[in-house]
Amino acid sequence: MARARQDVPMIRHVDDYSWETRDGNNPGDDIVRWKLLVDADRTPGFGFSLGILEIPPGGVLPPHHHTPQEVYCIYRGTGKLRLGGEVREVKAGTIVFIPQDHVHGIENVGPTPLSLMWIFPTDAWADVEYEYL
Amino acid sequence: MARARQDVPMIRHVDDYSWETRDGNNPGDDIVRWKLLVDADRTPGFGFSLGILEIPPGGVLPPHHHTPQEVYCIYRGTGKLRLGGEVREVKAGTIVFIPQDHVHGIENVGPTPLSLMWIFPTDAWADVEYEYL
Repeated sequence: MARARQDVPMIRHVDDYSWETRDGNNPGDDIVRWKLLVDADRTPGFGFSLGILEIPPGGVLPPHHHTPQEVYCIYRGTGKLRLGGEVREVKAGTIVFIPQDHVHGIENVGPTPLSLMWIFPTDAWADVEYEYL
Repeated sequence: MARARQDVPMIRHVDDYSWETRDGNNPGDDIVRWKLLVDADRTPGFGFSLGILEIPPGGVLPPHHHTPQEVYCIYRGTGKLRLGGEVREVKAGTIVFIPQDHVHGIENVGPTPLSLMWIFPTDAWADVEYEYL
Protein backbone atom coordinates (compact mmCIF):
# COMPACT_ATOMS: atom_id res chain seq x y z
CA MET A 1 0.00 0.00 0.00
CA ALA A 2 1.54 3.30 -1.05
CA ARG A 3 1.54 5.86 1.70
CA ALA A 4 3.79 8.80 2.31
CA ARG A 5 5.65 8.25 5.56
CA GLN A 6 4.58 10.94 7.96
CA ASP A 7 7.38 11.07 10.48
CA VAL A 8 6.23 14.36 11.96
CA PRO A 9 5.20 15.26 15.51
CA MET A 10 1.59 14.96 16.62
CA ILE A 11 -0.06 15.95 19.90
CA ARG A 12 -3.76 15.22 19.95
CA HIS A 13 -6.44 14.41 22.52
CA VAL A 14 -8.50 11.24 22.24
CA ASP A 15 -11.71 13.29 22.52
CA ASP A 16 -10.78 15.08 19.29
CA TYR A 17 -10.87 11.88 17.24
CA SER A 18 -14.14 10.72 15.72
CA TRP A 19 -15.61 7.32 16.44
CA GLU A 20 -15.66 5.07 13.41
CA THR A 21 -18.13 2.29 12.70
CA ARG A 22 -18.85 0.17 9.69
CA ASP A 23 -21.89 -1.45 8.19
CA GLY A 24 -19.66 -4.18 6.94
CA ASN A 25 -19.53 -7.79 6.02
CA ASN A 26 -17.79 -8.93 9.14
CA PRO A 27 -19.53 -10.10 12.30
CA GLY A 28 -19.59 -7.40 14.94
CA ASP A 29 -19.17 -4.52 12.52
CA ASP A 30 -22.47 -2.99 13.52
CA ILE A 31 -21.89 -3.40 17.25
CA VAL A 32 -18.47 -2.02 18.07
CA ARG A 33 -16.95 1.40 17.43
CA TRP A 34 -13.32 2.49 17.32
CA LYS A 35 -10.87 5.35 16.92
CA LEU A 36 -7.61 5.06 14.97
CA LEU A 37 -5.26 7.00 17.25
CA VAL A 38 -1.91 6.41 15.56
CA ASP A 39 -2.41 5.02 12.10
CA ALA A 40 -0.71 5.81 8.82
CA ASP A 41 -4.11 6.12 7.13
CA ARG A 42 -5.17 8.90 9.47
CA THR A 43 -2.23 10.40 11.34
CA PRO A 44 1.53 10.52 11.51
CA GLY A 45 2.88 7.10 12.45
CA PHE A 46 4.60 4.04 11.02
CA GLY A 47 6.17 0.82 12.24
CA PHE A 48 3.23 0.16 14.52
CA SER A 49 -0.34 1.39 14.83
CA LEU A 50 -2.87 1.60 17.60
CA GLY A 51 -6.42 2.54 18.36
CA ILE A 52 -9.21 2.08 20.85
CA LEU A 53 -12.20 -0.21 20.57
CA GLU A 54 -15.44 0.09 22.52
CA ILE A 55 -17.90 -2.79 22.90
CA PRO A 56 -21.29 -2.03 24.48
CA PRO A 57 -22.75 -4.21 27.26
CA GLY A 58 -23.67 -7.58 25.79
CA GLY A 59 -21.68 -6.89 22.62
CA VAL A 60 -19.24 -9.36 21.10
CA LEU A 61 -16.19 -9.13 18.88
CA PRO A 62 -16.45 -12.64 17.41
CA PRO A 63 -13.50 -15.06 17.24
CA HIS A 64 -11.09 -14.20 14.43
CA HIS A 65 -7.41 -14.31 13.58
CA HIS A 66 -4.86 -12.44 11.47
CA THR A 67 -1.22 -12.80 10.56
CA PRO A 68 0.26 -10.03 12.73
CA GLN A 69 0.60 -10.42 16.45
CA GLU A 70 -1.51 -7.99 18.49
CA VAL A 71 -1.70 -6.57 22.00
CA TYR A 72 -4.86 -5.61 23.88
CA CYS A 73 -4.67 -3.22 26.83
CA ILE A 74 -8.07 -3.26 28.50
CA TYR A 75 -8.79 0.00 30.27
CA ARG A 76 -12.49 -0.06 31.14
CA GLY A 77 -15.12 -2.65 31.88
CA THR A 78 -15.08 -6.40 32.16
CA GLY A 79 -15.08 -9.03 29.46
CA LYS A 80 -14.73 -12.65 28.59
CA LEU A 81 -11.72 -13.19 26.34
CA ARG A 82 -11.21 -16.19 24.12
CA LEU A 83 -7.54 -16.69 23.33
CA GLY A 84 -6.80 -19.90 21.46
CA GLY A 85 -8.53 -22.65 23.41
CA GLU A 86 -8.71 -20.64 26.60
CA VAL A 87 -11.54 -18.43 27.92
CA ARG A 88 -10.64 -15.93 30.64
CA GLU A 89 -12.22 -13.02 32.48
CA VAL A 90 -10.49 -9.73 31.73
CA LYS A 91 -10.94 -6.25 33.19
CA ALA A 92 -9.42 -2.80 33.25
CA GLY A 93 -5.67 -3.30 33.56
CA THR A 94 -5.47 -6.63 31.74
CA ILE A 95 -2.70 -6.86 29.13
CA VAL A 96 -3.04 -9.51 26.42
CA PHE A 97 -0.44 -10.69 23.94
CA ILE A 98 -2.05 -12.42 20.96
CA PRO A 99 0.44 -14.45 18.89
CA GLN A 100 0.45 -14.50 15.10
CA ASP A 101 -2.56 -16.27 13.55
CA HIS A 102 -3.96 -16.98 17.01
CA VAL A 103 -7.73 -17.10 17.35
CA HIS A 104 -9.18 -14.52 19.72
CA GLY A 105 -12.47 -12.83 20.48
CA ILE A 106 -13.96 -10.81 23.30
CA GLU A 107 -17.40 -10.33 24.81
CA ASN A 108 -18.55 -7.55 27.12
CA VAL A 109 -20.07 -9.32 30.13
CA GLY A 110 -20.34 -6.22 32.33
CA PRO A 111 -22.83 -3.36 32.74
CA THR A 112 -20.58 -0.63 31.25
CA PRO A 113 -18.81 -0.30 27.90
CA LEU A 114 -15.74 -2.51 27.53
CA SER A 115 -12.87 -0.42 26.21
CA LEU A 116 -9.45 -1.54 25.06
CA MET A 117 -6.45 -0.24 23.17
CA TRP A 118 -5.06 -2.46 20.42
CA ILE A 119 -1.55 -2.31 19.02
CA PHE A 120 -0.40 -3.89 15.74
CA PRO A 121 3.12 -4.04 14.26
CA THR A 122 1.71 -2.64 11.01
CA ASP A 123 1.71 0.93 9.74
CA ALA A 124 -2.07 0.93 9.74
CA TRP A 125 -5.02 -1.10 10.87
CA ALA A 126 -6.08 -1.49 7.23
CA ASP A 127 -2.96 -3.59 6.66
CA VAL A 128 -4.40 -6.35 8.87
CA GLU A 129 -6.58 -8.89 7.12
CA TYR A 130 -9.18 -10.31 9.48
CA GLU A 131 -10.40 -13.85 9.11
CA TYR A 132 -13.49 -14.81 11.08
CA LEU A 133 -14.24 -18.38 12.10
CA MET B 1 20.67 -8.97 20.78
CA ALA B 2 19.94 -12.69 20.80
CA ARG B 3 16.55 -13.50 22.20
CA ALA B 4 14.29 -16.43 21.62
CA ARG B 5 11.12 -15.19 19.98
CA GLN B 6 8.26 -15.85 22.36
CA ASP B 7 5.23 -15.85 20.14
CA VAL B 8 2.99 -17.38 22.79
CA PRO B 9 -0.20 -16.10 24.39
CA MET B 10 -0.08 -13.98 27.54
CA ILE B 11 -2.89 -12.66 29.73
CA ARG B 12 -1.65 -10.65 32.68
CA HIS B 13 -2.88 -7.82 34.87
CA VAL B 14 -0.87 -4.62 35.21
CA ASP B 15 -1.00 -4.93 39.02
CA ASP B 16 0.92 -8.20 38.76
CA TYR B 17 3.96 -6.54 37.20
CA SER B 18 6.65 -5.08 39.43
CA TRP B 19 7.68 -1.46 39.25
CA GLU B 20 11.22 -1.01 38.02
CA THR B 21 13.58 1.81 38.86
CA ARG B 22 17.23 2.41 38.27
CA ASP B 23 20.02 4.14 40.10
CA GLY B 24 21.51 4.95 36.79
CA ASN B 25 23.65 7.38 34.96
CA ASN B 26 20.85 9.09 33.14
CA PRO B 27 18.96 12.12 34.40
CA GLY B 28 15.62 11.19 35.90
CA ASP B 29 16.57 7.60 36.65
CA ASP B 30 16.02 8.09 40.36
CA ILE B 31 12.71 9.91 39.95
CA VAL B 32 10.54 7.88 37.63
CA ARG B 33 9.40 4.27 37.78
CA TRP B 34 8.09 1.97 35.06
CA LYS B 35 6.69 -1.43 34.18
CA LEU B 36 7.63 -3.32 31.01
CA LEU B 37 4.23 -4.71 30.00
CA VAL B 38 5.04 -6.28 26.63
CA ASP B 39 8.76 -6.55 26.16
CA ALA B 40 10.90 -9.34 24.75
CA ASP B 41 13.21 -9.08 27.77
CA ARG B 42 10.39 -9.84 30.17
CA THR B 43 7.37 -11.30 28.41
CA PRO B 44 6.12 -12.73 25.13
CA GLY B 45 6.22 -10.05 22.46
CA PHE B 46 8.16 -8.89 19.41
CA GLY B 47 7.85 -6.32 16.64
CA PHE B 48 6.89 -3.66 19.13
CA SER B 49 7.14 -3.17 22.88
CA LEU B 50 5.30 -1.11 25.44
CA GLY B 51 5.25 -0.18 29.07
CA ILE B 52 3.99 2.38 31.53
CA LEU B 53 5.92 5.22 33.11
CA GLU B 54 4.98 7.10 36.27
CA ILE B 55 6.39 10.51 37.15
CA PRO B 56 5.64 11.89 40.63
CA PRO B 57 4.40 15.48 41.13
CA GLY B 58 7.23 17.86 40.29
CA GLY B 59 9.21 15.10 38.58
CA VAL B 60 10.83 15.47 35.18
CA LEU B 61 11.87 13.12 32.41
CA PRO B 62 14.54 15.37 30.90
CA PRO B 63 14.81 16.14 27.18
CA HIS B 64 16.30 13.24 25.20
CA HIS B 65 16.09 11.56 21.82
CA HIS B 66 16.55 8.12 20.26
CA THR B 67 16.49 6.64 16.80
CA PRO B 68 13.13 4.85 16.94
CA GLN B 69 9.87 6.74 16.75
CA GLU B 70 7.74 6.52 19.90
CA VAL B 71 4.16 7.05 21.00
CA TYR B 72 2.99 8.33 24.40
CA CYS B 73 -0.56 7.70 25.56
CA ILE B 74 -1.08 9.77 28.69
CA TYR B 75 -3.69 8.23 30.96
CA ARG B 76 -3.40 10.05 34.28
CA GLY B 77 -2.36 13.46 35.49
CA THR B 78 -1.21 16.61 33.74
CA GLY B 79 2.17 17.48 32.32
CA LYS B 80 4.20 19.86 30.28
CA LEU B 81 5.57 18.13 27.20
CA ARG B 82 8.50 19.33 25.18
CA LEU B 83 8.40 18.01 21.63
CA GLY B 84 11.05 19.47 19.36
CA GLY B 85 10.82 23.22 19.77
CA GLU B 86 7.30 23.12 21.13
CA VAL B 87 6.08 23.01 24.75
CA ARG B 88 2.50 21.91 25.32
CA GLU B 89 0.21 21.00 28.20
CA VAL B 90 -0.85 17.36 28.12
CA LYS B 91 -3.33 15.41 30.24
CA ALA B 92 -5.09 12.08 30.46
CA GLY B 93 -6.21 11.22 26.95
CA THR B 94 -3.40 12.99 25.10
CA ILE B 95 -1.78 10.93 22.33
CA VAL B 96 1.72 11.95 21.20
CA PHE B 97 3.65 10.78 18.15
CA ILE B 98 7.36 11.41 18.55
CA PRO B 99 9.28 11.17 15.25
CA GLN B 100 12.65 9.46 14.91
CA ASP B 101 15.51 11.30 16.63
CA HIS B 102 13.10 13.99 17.84
CA VAL B 103 13.90 15.67 21.16
CA HIS B 104 11.22 15.20 23.81
CA GLY B 105 10.82 15.43 27.54
CA ILE B 106 7.98 15.67 30.02
CA GLU B 107 7.40 17.26 33.41
CA ASN B 108 4.63 16.53 35.88
CA VAL B 109 3.05 19.89 36.65
CA GLY B 110 0.02 18.51 38.50
CA PRO B 111 -0.73 17.33 42.04
CA THR B 112 -1.05 13.61 41.18
CA PRO B 113 1.29 11.15 39.50
CA LEU B 114 1.61 11.60 35.75
CA SER B 115 1.21 8.23 34.05
CA LEU B 116 1.69 7.31 30.43
CA MET B 117 2.06 4.29 28.20
CA TRP B 118 4.93 4.28 25.74
CA ILE B 119 5.16 2.19 22.60
CA PHE B 120 8.32 1.53 20.59
CA PRO B 121 8.73 -0.36 17.29
CA THR B 122 11.46 -2.44 18.91
CA ASP B 123 11.25 -5.90 20.45
CA ALA B 124 12.30 -4.47 23.79
CA TRP B 125 12.86 -1.20 25.56
CA ALA B 126 16.51 -2.16 26.02
CA ASP B 127 16.95 -1.91 22.25
CA VAL B 128 16.43 1.85 22.44
CA GLU B 129 19.54 3.92 23.06
CA TYR B 130 18.70 7.12 24.91
CA GLU B 131 20.70 10.26 24.33
CA TYR B 132 20.16 13.10 26.77
CA LEU B 133 20.81 16.72 25.91
